[in-house]
Amino acid sequence: MGNYPSILLENAVNQVASLPGIGRKTALRLVLNLLRRSDSEVETFTGAITQLKKEVHYCRICHNISDSEVCDICNSHHRDRSIVCVVENIQDVMSIENTGQYSGLYHVLGGIISPVDGIGPKDIEVDSLVARIEPEQIHEVILALPATMEGDTTTFYIYRRLAALEDKAPRISQIARGIAIGNDLEYTDEITLGRSILNRTEYNGTNNH
Amino acid sequence: MGNYPSILLENAVNQVASLPGIGRKTALRLVLNLLRRSDSEVETFTGAITQLKKEVHYCRICHNISDSEVCDICNSHHRDRSIVCVVENIQDVMSIENTGQYSGLYHVLGGIISPVDGIGPKDIEVDSLVARIEPEQIHEVILALPATMEGDTTTFYIYRRLAALEDKAPRISQIARGIAIGNDLEYTDEITLGRSILNRTEYNGTNNH
Repeated sequence: MGNYPSILLENAVNQVASLPGIGRKTALRLVLNLLRRSDSEVETFTGAITQLKKEVHYCRICHNISDSEVCDICNSHHRDRSIVCVVENIQDVMSIENTGQYSGLYHVLGGIISPVDGIGPKDIEVDSLVARIEPEQIHEVILALPATMEGDTTTFYIYRRLAALEDKAPRISQIARGIAIGNDLEYTDEITLGRSILNRTEYNGTNNH
Repeated sequence: MGNYPSILLENAVNQVASLPGIGRKTALRLVLNLLRRSDSEVETFTGAITQLKKEVHYCRICHNISDSEVCDICNSHHRDRSIVCVVENIQDVMSIENTGQYSGLYHVLGGIISPVDGIGPKDIEVDSLVARIEPEQIHEVILALPATMEGDTTTFYIYRRLAALEDKAPRISQIARGIAIGNDLEYTDEITLGRSILNRTEYNGTNNH
């Protein structure tokens, strides 16, 4: 869609269309929606983004986004401080928190190892994870990374780094992979199905292992 | 998705999620994408929106968005000033311009009559359209409104307002409705198909009528 009637409009559309997954038609619709709002509403919109960018903190322990130097989870007395769950990004922290099934701490890598994208171990928060491990305090590290080649590579790399701590190494675990709840076997890919047979769990009459 | 690790993040997500068609998960993804950019890139992003809101003009003749008091189309000497095409919004102007099939002027209503949404004739630019008609200059008004009940209502209302000008009334036309190019009859709805039979056009061996 070319022929913008205004350069200011075109600039705004270009900026909004620079966001991932937003095409130029959608961007135009969003910009025209903003344009119909009052001056103060538009100020609130841009102000919220500006303020976040200027004042955001990343927790110096777990690297999650935070409003202060140490995040609420790392600061909490209600969390199990002996377990650290390693995730790719802050969305993953929010997803796990929403399950209500985990009460330990987190470590946000800020990415996963991906040679194709030029992301190596030094570009993500692995060193800070290893430095965090004090054997008297942290007993288990749960690796909760994507079930992709990059995720598996990162999982294996971190496993080796932690295992190299030898007698100071914590217990290392990985989140379960298998058939997603509600899915038919018929529509599950072969690799997942194959692994779910190899990694079968004992059944005792309930679905809570 | 609740449990935001930061109030600033939550505020920014709330603002982005206030845009039409953007859910909270998408908004979070967009905000985190902005957060990964440099300060100056974020400033460029919010600045483009702020500048558009502050400095935008609407053409005082056709009400299209413009960088000046009168838009480039209304100012152009290359356009046919005897035809005015009436559209709902500025996206429609851009869509018609992109066809390359029209060289007349436009009139942007800024909405269509929709009693359900509380939008009446006074809320859209109908009076300014009627005031624009000077019979020596404007010979034809093309009504290019959506093929919906609201569009038809608005088309009929404008038709009556223009017809009431009596001997000063311009020729009034409506864009053709029928089977979209590339569509099978089988999958065309009955009303469109029925109308396309009633409103059949003479065929002379080509598809350019």
